[in-house]
Amino acid sequence: MGQVHAVILAGGSGTRFWPASRQARPKQLLPLAGRKGEALIAATVRRLHPLVSPDRVWIATGARIADATAAVLPDVPRAHILVEPAARNTAPAIGWAAATIARTEPDAIVCVFPADHFIADEPGFRDVLARAIAAAEGGSITTIGIVPTRPETGYGYIEVGGPVSDGVNAVARFVEKPDRERAARFVAGGKHLWNAGMFFFRASVMRAAIAKHLPALAAGLDELDAAAARGAEAKALAEVFPAMPSVSIDHGVLEHAEKLAVVPGSFGWNDIGSWEVAWELAPKDAAGNVTPEGTVTVDAANNLVRDLASTPGKKRYALVGVNDLVIVETDDAVLVIPRERAQDVRAVVEALQKRGETNRL
Amino acid sequence: MGQVHAVILAGGSGTRFWPASRQARPKQLLPLAGRKGEALIAATVRRLHPLVSPDRVWIATGARIADATAAVLPDVPRAHILVEPAARNTAPAIGWAAATIARTEPDAIVCVFPADHFIADEPGFRDVLARAIAAAEGGSITTIGIVPTRPETGYGYIEVGGPVSDGVNAVARFVEKPDRERAARFVAGGKHLWNAGMFFFRASVMRAAIAKHLPALAAGLDELDAAAARGAEAKALAEVFPAMPSVSIDHGVLEHAEKLAVVPGSFGWNDIGSWEVAWELAPKDAAGNVTPEGTVTVDAANNLVRDLASTPGKKRYALVGVNDLVIVETDDAVLVIPRERAQDVRAVVEALQKRGETNRL
Repeated sequence: MGQVHAVILAGGSGTRFWPASRQARPKQLLPLAGRKGEALIAATVRRLHPLVSPDRVWIATGARIADATAAVLPDVPRAHILVEPAARNTAPAIGWAAATIARTEPDAIVCVFPADHFIADEPGFRDVLARAIAAAEGGSITTIGIVPTRPETGYGYIEVGGPVSDGVNAVARFVEKPDRERAARFVAGGKHLWNAGMFFFRASVMRAAIAKHLPALAAGLDELDAAAARGAEAKALAEVFPAMPSVSIDHGVLEHAEKLAVVPGSFGWNDIGSWEVAWELAPKDAAGNVTPEGTVTVDAANNLVRDLASTPGKKRYALVGVNDLVIVETDDAVLVIPRERAQDVRAVVEALQKRGETNRL
Repeated sequence: MGQVHAVILAGGSGTRFWPASRQARPKQLLPLAGRKGEALIAATVRRLHPLVSPDRVWIATGARIADATAAVLPDVPRAHILVEPAARNTAPAIGWAAATIARTEPDAIVCVFPADHFIADEPGFRDVLARAIAAAEGGSITTIGIVPTRPETGYGYIEVGGPVSDGVNAVARFVEKPDRERAARFVAGGKHLWNAGMFFFRASVMRAAIAKHLPALAAGLDELDAAAARGAEAKALAEVFPAMPSVSIDHGVLEHAEKLAVVPGSFGWNDIGSWEVAWELAPKDAAGNVTPEGTVTVDAANNLVRDLASTPGKKRYALVGVNDLVIVETDDAVLVIPRERAQDVRAVVEALQKRGETNRL
């Protein structure tokens, strides 16, 4: 079979994790869950091993965070950090990455992963991953569908079709984010899975699908291939990439493609959507607090305190009589917000944008 | 009349204002109310002017904070910082300070003030002060009694006796901290005032009262006078002072003395007993927040945020959906506590003491 490569989609602004996440330090660069101090993107690369080794990992990202991304991924070749000259959503990002891989490995199987998700059961994930790679090898554009555990309205769903092979099904259809009632029916019905943004395909299969469903993108990729062949890709990229259609791979390709497969999986997946979730995933003390070592708590329960200063551990935190709070500190900012309002961090970011406080964004 | 001198009692550990207050930086050295950046003790000295000029102000304090105290009181002569070799409560502190003053000014009138209180109406305070000084000049040991505004159980009360002169009354008796019911009766009855720890007397009158009611203290003061006369006070102090009886001026002298006067006063006095009170006294924004400049508040009301880092202003605070919180930050600590629980800061200090974290006490 063809060599297996991975493309990690690592754009993202990460306003939901302000003040930890910044334009120059988005969510995937932060250690928000899992191993202590490990950035989410580093965990994303690490858990692919041994199915995909780091020298076959590619990162689709932007210029602003390329160096910081390379810094947390020392085993990924620097040439594999693909710097998009402009953010054009996932179809151009995936198309360009797959085209780049195919130049040296035309038979490559490409796996696409978001950079900033968490997976609790890594061996279980790799079992599902192997199945998805095999399905892609067989010619299907394959996705992993997460068995839903709650009527989530924030994700797209995948309706499962008939069986294709062991643990692999056809995709009946992709479903947009549902309302609460419909989401509850999906969970109860057992035929819908969460779309977690993981895709698997032969590079050649995706290129053909793009040619069929997104001809403008296909034309751009042809230009880039031609430029690369004469050693002039950088210049062409700056011209061609920003002109590509800004569309997601889901809308642009998958919803129209024919041979689609899905592998259902349950491996403790979480997209870590807020500080609330970061608290949920973290090991807690007896009172449910997640705090830096040495923190003094008095009648304080279920709080999350994150000391993300450049030299952490300098401050002794003391919480008295407060519950369910998120407290996050960096060198230049302090956030205090109830866990249940964690999504409203956006309001702070918006206020800072309105003020033009770009150095704190 | 004799020259008027002031003795500022500036001991105090200030655990109620942790993490701002420390063993090496007690409450009176902090700018907790009033003019921006002005330490409470500096305000205490400033507002005596012109009745008592800084060169007639004396500070009774301990070795640990003597330098820091001198630093915020540049107009007080360094020789007037009286460093007690051990904390022996107020009677020895006042006795020694008055004896020291009397060596050069035997006719001096001495005014005693706590270092760490707040007074909103400074001209009103000086009016009362002038009356108290006049009463002391007349030979009475005089105190200022604060007209109570609530049934406070945390203060001692002074029961007012018959009139002595314009705005001056005899003291019927000193009353220990009452329970709630009794305090309410005191407030309703209009015959009781708060004992705010301000005392006024001729040095000679106090010395005679000490001789009568605290002979051991008087003997110690005699020894110190004799040693000072032969230029050897420092050595004598180290031996004599720690052996003095540890007793308050109230219990040791005032409760037994005969010619006691009280001047009632209402001048916005506040002993700033907690962060809660610091919030009450501070200017607030429309939502009742007291925060550093630039703070972002979203659905957040009636909070107190104090940035007491050595280089303040570096952090942007953001409060979302939290009310009635106190958040205090120093270089090495962060406190989060509801305003109404501000007294429980003690529990943090106790926890740190138990752990032996002396560098944060």
